[in-house]
Amino acid sequence: MTTARRDTYTPETLLSVAVQVFIERGYDGTSMEHLSKAAGISKSSIYHHVAGKEELLRRAVSRALDELFGILDEEHARVGSAAGRLEYVVRRMVEVLMAELPYVTLLLRVRGNTDTERWALERRREFDHRVAALLKDAAAKGDVRADVEVRLATRLVFGMINSIVEWYRPDAADGRAGAGEREGEREVVDAVARLVFGGLRKG
Amino acid sequence: MTTARRDTYTPETLLSVAVQVFIERGYDGTSMEHLSKAAGISKSSIYHHVAGKEELLRRAVSRALDELFGILDEEHARVGSAAGRLEYVVRRMVEVLMAELPYVTLLLRVRGNTDTERWALERRREFDHRVAALLKDAAAKGDVRADVEVRLATRLVFGMINSIVEWYRPDAADGRAGAGEREGEREVVDAVARLVFGGLRKG
Repeated sequence: MTTARRDTYTPETLLSVAVQVFIERGYDGTSMEHLSKAAGISKSSIYHHVAGKEELLRRAVSRALDELFGILDEEHARVGSAAGRLEYVVRRMVEVLMAELPYVTLLLRVRGNTDTERWALERRREFDHRVAALLKDAAAKGDVRADVEVRLATRLVFGMINSIVEWYRPDAADGRAGAGEREGEREVVDAVARLVFGGLRKG
Repeated sequence: MTTARRDTYTPETLLSVAVQVFIERGYDGTSMEHLSKAAGISKSSIYHHVAGKEELLRRAVSRALDELFGILDEEHARVGSAAGRLEYVVRRMVEVLMAELPYVTLLLRVRGNTDTERWALERRREFDHRVAALLKDAAAKGDVRADVEVRLATRLVFGMINSIVEWYRPDAADGRAGAGEREGEREVVDAVARLVFGGLRKG
C-alpha cells in the first residue's frame, strides 16, 4: 500500500518535474505534451491538478519568491544594524538559492512574455529594491562603502550570488551527501559573505 | 557610390547580424533562413562568405576569446606583483566585456552541442584556469585572502563580472554616448575592482 502511494502523483511531484522541463526546454519551448511525457502521466491527469502550464510556472516561481521574501521577515533581517541585516540577507539568499536550486534557476530565467512572467519580473525587482534599500541604509550609517553607487553595487552583488545556479549541484562529483553536502553549502555561503563584504584583498 | 558601398555586406557586418540572431533565438534555434532574413541577403550570398552557421559561431566566439586571451599578453598582466596583475586582468575583463558585449554574451551562452561549442567551452575553461592561477599566486604571496578556496573564489568573481551582460547596455536609457558612455564604462570597471578587491565593508 505504501509503495503504491509513493507512485501517486501529487501537485508537488508534478511541479518538480515541470520545473526540470521548463529549465531544459525553456518555458516557451515546453508543451503540455512534453510535460505529460516527462511526468509519465496523461495530459488529462495533469489538467486534474492544474489549469495549464502557466499555472505550473506561477507555482514554481512563487515558491522561489516566497522563500526569498520570507528572508526579509526573519528576525535578523529586521533587527540590528543595517550592515548586519544586509550580511544576514546575503547569506540567507545564498542558502535559499542552494536549497531551492531549480525553482530559483527558473525564476532567474524568466523573460516576460506572459502575465505570469511579467509578474515574476516585477516581484524580483521589488526584492532587489528591498535589498538595495538595506545597502543604502548601511552606506548612510557609514558601515558600507559609499564610493560605489547603490544600484550598481546591488546589481554586482546579485550577479555574484545568482551566478551560483550556473555551477552549483547538490550532488557534486564526489558523490558526497548529507553532512558533507551541508558542509559544501556552508563553504559557499561563507565564501560569498567574505568576498561581498571583505573582498579578495587580505584585510 | 559611397552610399552603395555602405550597403555592401562584408563578413564583418554579416557576423554582427548573426550574433544578434544567435543571442535572440539561441544558436540551436537559428536556421540559415533566419540569418538570411535578418541580414536582408539571400542564403547563397551568405554561403559566399561562410560555409554555414557553425563558421559564423566560431568567428563570433573567437573574437571574444581572442580579446580575453589578449589581456593575458598585455604588459601589466605579465609584469609586477601577482595581486597587481590580477587586478589589471579583472579590470580589463570588464572593459572587454563591455566593448565586445554581443560577442562575450554569445560566448557565455554557449552550451556545447557542436564541436565549435565544445571547443569554445574548453577555451573558456582554459582562460578561467589562467586567471585562477594568478589568484593562487597572489594568495601564496599573502596579497590575497587564502580563506576562500581558489576555484570557488574564481567562480564567484567571474560570476560577478559575467553578470554584467545581463543589464549593461552601451546606449543606456538616458541616451548618453561618447564621453558620457565612456564615463559609465569607467564607473562599472571601478565598481567591480572596488568590490572584488575591497568588498562592501568600509576599509
